[in-house]
Amino acid sequence: MSEVDEFDYIRRRLAPLSAGVLGADRLRNDGAFLVLPPDHELAMTADTLIEGRHFPEGENPALVARKALRVNLSDLAAMGATPRYYMSSVIWPEVGRDERIEGFADGLAEDQARYGVHLIGGDTTVSPGCWSIAITALGLVPAGEGVRRSGGAPGDLLAVTGTIGDAWLGLQARLGQLDARPGYDVEHFIRRFTLPDPRHTLAEAVRKQAHAAIDISDGLLADLRHLATESECGARVELEQVPLSEATRAWMSEQNDPETAIRSLTTGGDDYELVLAIPEDALPAFTQACGNRGVPVTVIGHLEEPAQGMQVMLNGRKLKPDQWGFTHF
Amino acid sequence: MSEVDEFDYIRRRLAPLSAGVLGADRLRNDGAFLVLPPDHELAMTADTLIEGRHFPEGENPALVARKALRVNLSDLAAMGATPRYYMSSVIWPEVGRDERIEGFADGLAEDQARYGVHLIGGDTTVSPGCWSIAITALGLVPAGEGVRRSGGAPGDLLAVTGTIGDAWLGLQARLGQLDARPGYDVEHFIRRFTLPDPRHTLAEAVRKQAHAAIDISDGLLADLRHLATESECGARVELEQVPLSEATRAWMSEQNDPETAIRSLTTGGDDYELVLAIPEDALPAFTQACGNRGVPVTVIGHLEEPAQGMQVMLNGRKLKPDQWGFTHF
Repeated sequence: MSEVDEFDYIRRRLAPLSAGVLGADRLRNDGAFLVLPPDHELAMTADTLIEGRHFPEGENPALVARKALRVNLSDLAAMGATPRYYMSSVIWPEVGRDERIEGFADGLAEDQARYGVHLIGGDTTVSPGCWSIAITALGLVPAGEGVRRSGGAPGDLLAVTGTIGDAWLGLQARLGQLDARPGYDVEHFIRRFTLPDPRHTLAEAVRKQAHAAIDISDGLLADLRHLATESECGARVELEQVPLSEATRAWMSEQNDPETAIRSLTTGGDDYELVLAIPEDALPAFTQACGNRGVPVTVIGHLEEPAQGMQVMLNGRKLKPDQWGFTHF
Repeated sequence: MSEVDEFDYIRRRLAPLSAGVLGADRLRNDGAFLVLPPDHELAMTADTLIEGRHFPEGENPALVARKALRVNLSDLAAMGATPRYYMSSVIWPEVGRDERIEGFADGLAEDQARYGVHLIGGDTTVSPGCWSIAITALGLVPAGEGVRRSGGAPGDLLAVTGTIGDAWLGLQARLGQLDARPGYDVEHFIRRFTLPDPRHTLAEAVRKQAHAAIDISDGLLADLRHLATESECGARVELEQVPLSEATRAWMSEQNDPETAIRSLTTGGDDYELVLAIPEDALPAFTQACGNRGVPVTVIGHLEEPAQGMQVMLNGRKLKPDQWGFTHF
């Protein structure tokens, strides 16, 4: 793409995505100026998706844009922040760039309208390597009310939103390792993997009721362990309490080795649900607030004294910690 | 690198870089919370460096880290912003990652101390492709005083800081296309290419005296044209006025084709000097403020009415616009 085409693309497709944000100046600068409302803090997070690693090669570019945005909005939800802005730094591949740019802008446009966020700047480069999208997302929290991973305390209940494992099954389906069966809806799994639903509507409830929160990208057990570690707590989780969708339960019922199956579901990642440390007396209000927004909440364990370490239980039996997670690093 | 090593690296090398920023919570989260001082805006910018494209393959990783930070601080200087924070999203190559991570952290540590900025978060991933570093830098400006590319007006003088072209000669030297000669200092050129000096000390002067500003990454003429275009102005530049270092003048004196030589210097990029649109009556104060900080300022032209377009003059003759720039896209 020539320089003329690049600036044409920015003006024609990206600049409209900054409309209404005065400090983004129609993307005529590399950067932007942000004014915060009084008594608010800015919450910032950054997540990168790489083709062939975080999404399949040849993925529909609009879906890639939407997933790249959503995984960042998921982080903001865990911080209790209301999403407002994002910057996008894209490395386009030399081969296949032209087929991606329009769909990519379509996807950003669709989801930024859905979530009420605006593009405020970024950077584009080209590399012989693979396509990558680094999003920095920005949200607002009332001053002092932001939620961290490190705020949990022994005795807090560990709660999880939605259902776990659908995205991992979706990945298996995308890899051709899961056949469609009458008992479960493969399209549901694929949708959960391809296009997660960030829990942005829960930001206020997270701020009001949770001591600590994290979103599930690496896997339920890995991310729950991060929360416990950063909170300097032990944790006990009952795997049989982990909430599963009807489709996932149908898949589970066909597995010969249910222990391996539940471990796959709880270490697979890409769920983009929240794990929260909630004091017991705040749980009813949190559950109510989530229920009002159509999001189920399930208690799957609790934080303990640090000396207890991490205990992963299945039907009263303690599992070995030899495969609790998954890392992109 | 295993997950354990990744978290060890973050704790041991990166978390100390966030010391003193309460909202970064020792990098125990993916994100951070920022509180702005009263009556200030946040200035944000993002720039990505890719190995083999923006810096040579096999470059010293500490120098890569420092350049990645500095090119972003250069953007903030053009915005009139005082740098404060940065986030770093790094894609490590699968091969050669372990040799890079310690030097990279060393480089960040050295330059963040030099410039008074702090790491507040980010993201690390691994890819079979090449190494890339996406930095998002954040600075502060008093509310309403931020400087944009678009603020110029016809009649404004076009001024440039420092000297132009040294970095392009440094790139030629790194590519083995420039021999050391008694007349000039190749090490000076290489240093200017490898490790630019962002004009962060000029942020206040930029805010007080400039209508518009941009930093020179793509090339003097390309970036000056951006400023003129976004300001909806024409521009006239006298190439013989472009400030050259003593070493560059020595190189120039050996060139058979001085027109091609000056065009190379003014389109080569990587200078990380500032181009500014300054009203004539503000120039003395700006020059004085820059002089107090050891930075020379040179007037090389002025903005005109938009109908005049862009006129690049050399000794009173108008050059053709067939190669004014360079783009990474």
